[in-house]
Amino acid sequence: MRTKPLYGAIEAGGTKVVCAAGYGPTEVPADGRAVIPTTAPEATLAAVVQFFEGITRKYGVLSAIGIGAFGPVDLDTSSPTWGRILATPKPGWSGTSVVAPLERFGCPIILDTDVNAAALAETRLGAGAGVGSLAYVTVGTGIGGGVVVGDHTIKGLLHPEMGHIHVKRDPRDADFSGICPFHGDCLEGLASGPAVQARWHTRAEDLPDLHPGREILGGYLGQLAATIALMLSCERIVFGGGVVSGGRLLPYIRRSASQWLGGYLPIEARAGGFNRYIAAPGLGDLAGTAGALLLAMQAAQARH
Amino acid sequence: MRTKPLYGAIEAGGTKVVCAAGYGPTEVPADGRAVIPTTAPEATLAAVVQFFEGITRKYGVLSAIGIGAFGPVDLDTSSPTWGRILATPKPGWSGTSVVAPLERFGCPIILDTDVNAAALAETRLGAGAGVGSLAYVTVGTGIGGGVVVGDHTIKGLLHPEMGHIHVKRDPRDADFSGICPFHGDCLEGLASGPAVQARWHTRAEDLPDLHPGREILGGYLGQLAATIALMLSCERIVFGGGVVSGGRLLPYIRRSASQWLGGYLPIEARAGGFNRYIAAPGLGDLAGTAGALLLAMQAAQARH
Repeated sequence: MRTKPLYGAIEAGGTKVVCAAGYGPTEVPADGRAVIPTTAPEATLAAVVQFFEGITRKYGVLSAIGIGAFGPVDLDTSSPTWGRILATPKPGWSGTSVVAPLERFGCPIILDTDVNAAALAETRLGAGAGVGSLAYVTVGTGIGGGVVVGDHTIKGLLHPEMGHIHVKRDPRDADFSGICPFHGDCLEGLASGPAVQARWHTRAEDLPDLHPGREILGGYLGQLAATIALMLSCERIVFGGGVVSGGRLLPYIRRSASQWLGGYLPIEARAGGFNRYIAAPGLGDLAGTAGALLLAMQAAQARH
Repeated sequence: MRTKPLYGAIEAGGTKVVCAAGYGPTEVPADGRAVIPTTAPEATLAAVVQFFEGITRKYGVLSAIGIGAFGPVDLDTSSPTWGRILATPKPGWSGTSVVAPLERFGCPIILDTDVNAAALAETRLGAGAGVGSLAYVTVGTGIGGGVVVGDHTIKGLLHPEMGHIHVKRDPRDADFSGICPFHGDCLEGLASGPAVQARWHTRAEDLPDLHPGREILGGYLGQLAATIALMLSCERIVFGGGVVSGGRLLPYIRRSASQWLGGYLPIEARAGGFNRYIAAPGLGDLAGTAGALLLAMQAAQARH
């Protein structure tokens, strides 16, 4: 009798690392999941290794490990710095390999961004089940976006960094200079959680009902949605993260995207209208690890 | 002895339709090419059929036909309107099928946009030879963009329509309202040939040396290049078309893209700098038919 293959999944985020092990994205045993705070890289990665050592003692060897990591991260397997986090403001993490500590498990390791992994999971199991291409955007401490086209995530020069596109400014917001250290008033500099805090001294979910902030934020994020539709022609766009869900921004994002597109794309005829086209996540917090597990399954299949 | 397969290629543009037949993108016989003016759809398509009837009489049957068509066009093979030009200002063309008249040749037909076909040819044979992903932008009567990722063009909801993204306005150009009938001052409304004509009453190539128009146009197109890099993570971007080449805009586009990216992406380290990253077309006018021929070869292979 052949044992069912077991896969490891890691969602390495800026505040926490979620580890999981299972036989499929919906087959994770009760003790097959752990949440580790993201502190110094050595301590964090040691705890990750410890978790998977416990898993392999109890459940046997891993067939592959999938990782969805915060960026920027080197995804190019032909590069000498494959697996390393690139220049990041997170203390100690620049240059850290998130892959090397896991090589002791002797199985294929596949690395992608956290948002590409989430996009893959949402495409297969979540809000995009059945579509051929999907973008997943999360708005929190930063703004990240992942893209799946035809069952594969988009990489290339680096990986999508759509939080850093520039948007046209809302006249009501003209005085705010933005907080992105690279670009000032790029999208992340205007619509991330820290940007909300910087100009309105509150979280998006605590904005008063008649505050113009929701329209302003939804307006900027709707420009991103329109840009995704025009640049990538995605069949669905998922918007998640604390700023969007807490701020109840989806209706504003949809209205803004519709205005910026000006009827140009067949959203009604071919995507069932903006309410279907721009969707909330279907998997919630599980998208990252589910996607990492799907990546691990891809890696194991590619080996056979 | 088995005959070498012969392929048909059609680049259907707004002003002319270029037809070609050959054994590969660089193996087109001297009489295997024809240029047909784009007039009414019936007359235009009848001339296309006539050309290929002459070809098949002389060279034998076609193994497949590849078409790169102006958009918007329905590329979804599962759609009842597959092959039809969608709503377009071109008189008579809305709803016209560019595929139906070719079915008489009894071979597989593959349809994509003209710019996706050109992107494929530039990736394989032109300015992007060897890269894994490439965007091809052409700036003329309109602004169109095609994208290849991992040997395949990007489709989905429709196809990339990147000419219609919005860009931040140059303060020197604040009075011009743009000419796009859908969006006013989207990129195409600001930087296409007719937009140049509308505000400066000349062609881009005839702008005087110290005219700010080059910086303004290059600035807008550089924003598109930065957006491509951030959204699609392409390994190379090709800019062609009369406005770019005639206006000698590439240096302005590169400078603008660099400014908008603000050092955020590893263009120097991983793409050899902006002079390599943002390139002129390698195939010139031949990209469209070469790409259509490559598409035909893909279609014939997929059938076997």
